[in-house]
Formats: sequence, structure tokens, C-alpha cells
Amino acid sequence: MPAVSRRSQSVPLSPFRKLIPLADRAKAAGKHIYHLNIGQPDILTHPLAVEKFRKLPWQILDYSPSNGIASYREALCGYYARFGVSVSADEIMVTTGGSEAILFFMLACLDPGDEIIIPEPFYANYNGYAHMAGVDVVPITCDIADGFSIPSVEAFAEKITPRTRAIVITNPNNPTGACYSQDELERLSGIVREHDLFLCVDEVYREFSYDSPLQSILQLPGLDAHAVVIDSVSKRYSATGARVGALVCRNLAVRESVDRYAKLRLSPPGLGQRLSEVMLEDDGQYLQGVKEDYRRRRDIVYERLQQMPGVFSYEPGGAFYCFARFPIADSEDFCRWLLEDFSHEGATVMLSPGPGFYATPGLGLDECRIAYVLNTDDLGKAMDCLEAALAVYPGSTLSGADAGSDVASSARR
Amino acid sequence: MPAVSRRSQSVPLSPFRKLIPLADRAKAAGKHIYHLNIGQPDILTHPLAVEKFRKLPWQILDYSPSNGIASYREALCGYYARFGVSVSADEIMVTTGGSEAILFFMLACLDPGDEIIIPEPFYANYNGYAHMAGVDVVPITCDIADGFSIPSVEAFAEKITPRTRAIVITNPNNPTGACYSQDELERLSGIVREHDLFLCVDEVYREFSYDSPLQSILQLPGLDAHAVVIDSVSKRYSATGARVGALVCRNLAVRESVDRYAKLRLSPPGLGQRLSEVMLEDDGQYLQGVKEDYRRRRDIVYERLQQMPGVFSYEPGGAFYCFARFPIADSEDFCRWLLEDFSHEGATVMLSPGPGFYATPGLGLDECRIAYVLNTDDLGKAMDCLEAALAVYPGSTLSGADAGSDVASSARR
Repeated sequence: MPAVSRRSQSVPLSPFRKLIPLADRAKAAGKHIYHLNIGQPDILTHPLAVEKFRKLPWQILDYSPSNGIASYREALCGYYARFGVSVSADEIMVTTGGSEAILFFMLACLDPGDEIIIPEPFYANYNGYAHMAGVDVVPITCDIADGFSIPSVEAFAEKITPRTRAIVITNPNNPTGACYSQDELERLSGIVREHDLFLCVDEVYREFSYDSPLQSILQLPGLDAHAVVIDSVSKRYSATGARVGALVCRNLAVRESVDRYAKLRLSPPGLGQRLSEVMLEDDGQYLQGVKEDYRRRRDIVYERLQQMPGVFSYEPGGAFYCFARFPIADSEDFCRWLLEDFSHEGATVMLSPGPGFYATPGLGLDECRIAYVLNTDDLGKAMDCLEAALAVYPGSTLSGADAGSDVASSARR
Repeated sequence: MPAVSRRSQSVPLSPFRKLIPLADRAKAAGKHIYHLNIGQPDILTHPLAVEKFRKLPWQILDYSPSNGIASYREALCGYYARFGVSVSADEIMVTTGGSEAILFFMLACLDPGDEIIIPEPFYANYNGYAHMAGVDVVPITCDIADGFSIPSVEAFAEKITPRTRAIVITNPNNPTGACYSQDELERLSGIVREHDLFLCVDEVYREFSYDSPLQSILQLPGLDAHAVVIDSVSKRYSATGARVGALVCRNLAVRESVDRYAKLRLSPPGLGQRLSEVMLEDDGQYLQGVKEDYRRRRDIVYERLQQMPGVFSYEPGGAFYCFARFPIADSEDFCRWLLEDFSHEGATVMLSPGPGFYATPGLGLDECRIAYVLNTDDLGKAMDCLEAALAVYPGSTLSGADAGSDVASSARR
């Protein structure tokens, strides 16, 4: 029998992949699972746009241009203009989800053996795309104590080598929910200009910034040669299955390089692009409503975590994630136990163990990511489950006195 | 300014890419262009299925499973069973077009520096995917004189090295239209079993076999460990923009390796999959009609080429391509001249120059690919253009006597 490739055996896997069979078994046994492990929201895809999409008069579902349908890219210019970003349709390359935009960035801008610096914890699939592109990820560890804010200029400078080609950040952040301030972005801007690096900012959660308007990297001056933005309609319109994203960049050489890979895969999905275009027509009210929904969910998660003894959290400013520290020694064990051995009123909760979001081994052992993608009722019940679970978890690291205390640690940003 | 990657500069480009700006200029100047250069058919996407698709009751366009929507994969089992192939839903992995299936095959089955043998001329984008995967393409040249049939066992044996991991063929073939017989496939089957190789067969044109039923590699016994089929709805249902393909394989280790890449990109397009599923419900009549359309077009192209002095062709058995030899010295020059300097009744024709379909330098200089993707009226006019062009082309290699002759060379398969 011919053997499969060696490289495929080392593709990094999702942080919760090992838990999926356990979740399936728990469900088969009749347990309800509140899924706080994945970024699949329960929010309806823009209903008015979906109705309009159903009536679009196309007859041939043909290839779109490899950089996306022109009218959709034109419409996106209007979308970006609404938050103060001026880009032309040519500067937008439509991709098959944000995922493909990340891969295209790495292939177009980095060679095998090159390094990218990413503050950790970070979106675990960056590891997979770096693996595909043969690029080395160099992490800088962020601190839960200050809500995972951007590391200092000095911390970046220490990591920069002759192989460093880019800094990659997610803003608002997955898995931490951190939103970076203008100050933080300007610091990064200074670093990438000084060292002639790319600054790739994954802004797929742009609409979900709860406490202040999000600053896009495209609004900062002097970064036209450096800035690459990853975008996606997946979370914005609750249309993860559309598989429509974008890479936005004012640097022509980057776009020409990306275009070679884009042409190779012919075109991004045609139906998803058509849907995305109509979603753009009238999305102000929809997006405002969705943001309010998520803000309420954020508040519930934050407040409930504050009340759980021994749980250390902070108020996440954006996206729909919170990355919290629990009184546990091994978050994988804890997540497994939640699925296999625990239930509360016939239900349990599924979380993502922390270590999968770190590149540095041994970090995140007492942390988990919570994706607040459930409606407030279900989210409340999920937090009930989590609280009840922590009170009885045999692997708890809380001493008896701590466990009884109602003083929760927290850091407010 | 940070520099783009070196690797991106050597991504192989499409054979007609350089011609696109010339075509755009010709159109801007008012010339009509008959596009015989690309595989974008003018046939309507299955109209009944499109109507049904519009009424599907989904509300959240969520991620599908990374290997595709279960009900769609189940329905595909029924599709394969119709032509005698028995596969289970688990053996089908839905991909983002056939393109992604090719890339996943290369990543999952080959390591950088490994070799794949491909009979040439071949689908040019295999070069691009091999480039992405760091895999070396080893061509075996086929002969237009016998309609580009599969090379002999000896020809393959000569090319096999310790780095050879797979043979890749396209059946029916793009760009030649050749359909491989059971005998030819059994010969290949013997080779891959003897040398323990993968046999990857791109069957995206499966439905378009005009003279006999197509033999799928999945029908041959003893190949479960070796055979990987690339499939796609793009051509079958004239839905190239759906971006829905599949990788079908009975070898579990291959599927597990592919699955790591599939999970990384989260899911194939959800709308395209929903459309593809309804297209499967009632496609017998539609597919029969489409096939008849293409057969008529094939006949027109073949007969017209037969009548053109100095043109050497053959009767292509499948797909919607013919790869013909013209009385020209350089097909890129000829294709450029067609766009820039020639018109016939206000129109011209765009073809794909031959060399882009060969890995061996210097081959295909007097050949072009014709994609018969236009209705019979337009196709007739396109062939009028081509005939008129050849009669006046300043670079013609025909002597005066030959040019006046009505004896065309041909090889009938």
C-alpha cells in the first residue's frame, strides 16, 4: 500500500478536535451539550438579504473573476468607507473565507523558513497555515492579567531575527476578545516600519467591538506597503458557510503575488459572493442588532465568571470569546471530564482547552476559551453548568477555603 | 518596502493569461471575441434544481462538516452507483472545487521533492498545485497522431524513480478530449500496483464521454489502496462558480491525511453544496441533454477542423476540448495575432496556446486547445473565424500549394 505523506502527519490539529468523539458519545447517551467551543453562532444569517438572495436572477453559476465579482468588490469599498477606510476595488481580493486569505498572505509574502511573530494565545489555525507554507511561528506570550494586551515594543524587538518577515495579529482577538487601541497599533506600526516587516491584521471580528469603535490597521498612515488585512463575512453576517473572505492590501506587489495563487484556484464561491453582496446593501440595522446581542452575551459571561470562585477573567472588549483561567491543573482533562463524567440537569458544556492556542509548550494548562455563541437563555444555562462543574470537579486546585469564597479575581480593561 | 516571497514569483501561470489584456483591448475596440480559450460553458445551470435551491428553507448558513454535508455525501453515493461504482459516504470528501481536491491529494500523499508522472499535454494548473506542494512533475509525452492515448507501460517504467509516488491522469482528458479505455486503465493499474504508487484520476468530465460509457478508475478491482478520484460539479451541471468538488478514495489513511487539511480550512462552500445536492435529485435528463449538446459541438469542431488545410486533428472522445495542430510556428504568436491583428465580420477567436499544457519545453508550439463551450451557432461562427484567419495568417507554415489544398490530415480514434 502506498504510504501517505510525512508532512500530513504533522499538520497541527484544532484544540478541541480530540474532544469531538467524546461529545458525540455524550450526545448519544442523551446528554445535552452547550457548545461554547466553536465559533459557529446561533444568530440568523441576515434574513432580508437571504430573501433577496433567493430572488437573484442568475441562470449560469459561472466562475467569478479570481479576485472576486467586480460589483461585490465595489460594494465592499462602500462598506470600508463607512468606518473611515478608503480602499479601491482593486485593493480588495475576494477569497474563499478568511482562511484562504491567511494562506495566500503566507504564500505570497513569506518563503519557507521565514518567521512570523504572533502574540499568543492566538487562533490555532494560524499554526496549520504556517505549516502548509513552511513558515515558522514565533510567539510572544501575552498576559491574562492585563487582558492580553499587545506586548511591548521591546518584547517584539527581542524576537526579531533576519528571518522575521511579518507580525500577525487578530483584532478583535480570537481567542482572547482583546481589542487593540490606537496606541497599541501605532506601536506595532513603528516596529514594522523600522524593521521593514509586513503587518497582517485579521479583522474578521471587526464589527464586534463593544466599548469603543474598532481601529482598523488600514486607518493608520504610512503603512500602505506593510499592512495586509484579512477579512470575512462569516462572523459579521453569521454566514460561516458562505466561505467568502477578503485580503485587503494597498501594496500592488503583494496583490500581484496573491493573484497568482488566486488564479490557480480559479475563483471564490459564486453563490457566497452573491449573498455577500446583497448582505452589504442594508446591513447597518442588522449589524447593530447582532452587536447588541453579543454585547449582552459578553456581559453575561463576564459577570458569571466573576462570580465563580477561583476563576480569573477580564472583560473582553470584542469578538465573541473570553479566555479565562480556571482553578484546574490541566484544561484538557477538565474539558474531557465535562463531557464524560459531569452533567447538570441533563446537560454539560464544551469548551476549548487553552494549550492549543499557544505555540509555547506548557502554557494555557489552566485556561479555556469560551465562545459565547448561544442565545442568552442557553448561555445562562451553560454558565450554570460550568459553575456547578467547577464546584464538584475532582481535579480542582482550589483549597476548601478558596472554593467557598465568593471573591473572584478579575482584571478590568 | 517589505519584499514579497520568492516562491510566489515562480507560480506557473495559465496558458492564456498573457493574452487576457490583448482580449480586453480588442473588446474595447469593438471586436467580438469567441472565447474558445476557457472551460466556462454557456449552458444553463440545471434550471429545475436552481428553482428548488432558491426555495430551500435554511436560516443560518453555518459551517458544514469539513468533509461535506452528510446528506449530500449520501446522495453522491447514489450518483456513483448509477455508473457502477460502489462507495460509502465516508469515502467521499467534499472539497472547494476539484482544484482543492487536487491540492489536498498532493499534500496528503506526497512530500516535497516527490515526483508525479503525468502524461502531457495536461491540465496546466496541475503545475501550479505541484508548485504549491513542492512536488516535481515528470511528464510523458503523448502523441497527437494516436489521439493522445495513454503511453505504453515501458514509457512509464522508464520514468519511475525512487521518488515517484503517483501517476496523475485526467479522464476524459483536458486539454485533449481523450477518453481512456478499460485496457488503458488496466495497464495503468498494473503499473501502480507493481510500483506501489497512487493513481490519481481527475474525472471531472466523466459525464462527457461521447462514443462509449466512461470507465471510472473506481470500477477497477484491486486498486482500493491506490486510486484517488478527483471530482467536481463544475462542468457536470455547468456550475463552475459553485466551487464544489470531491476527493473519493477507499484508502482510509489517505482520507485521514486529507481530513487534516480539510479541517484546517473549516468547510467547503455551504450554498454550493446545497445546490449540488438538489442538482443530484433529478439530473438524468439534464445530463443527457447537456451531453447531446456537447456531442453536437464536438462534431462541428472536428468536422470543421478536418476541412481546414494543414490542420491536423482527431476526433476527441470526451470532455469539451480538442487539441489540434495548426500550420503555424508559434501558437502564442498566432493567438496574439488573432486578437490584435485579425478580424472576420467584426469578430475573432481566442484559443489557448499549446506550450502551456506541456511540461517539456519546446512542445506544443504548433498546437492550440479549443474549448467548445459555445452554442452551435456561435461555434460555427468561431470556426469560420478560425478558418478565415488561417487562410491569411502571415506566419503560416503552409506552402502555397498546401494552403490551397482541401486535403486535411486527421487521425480518427
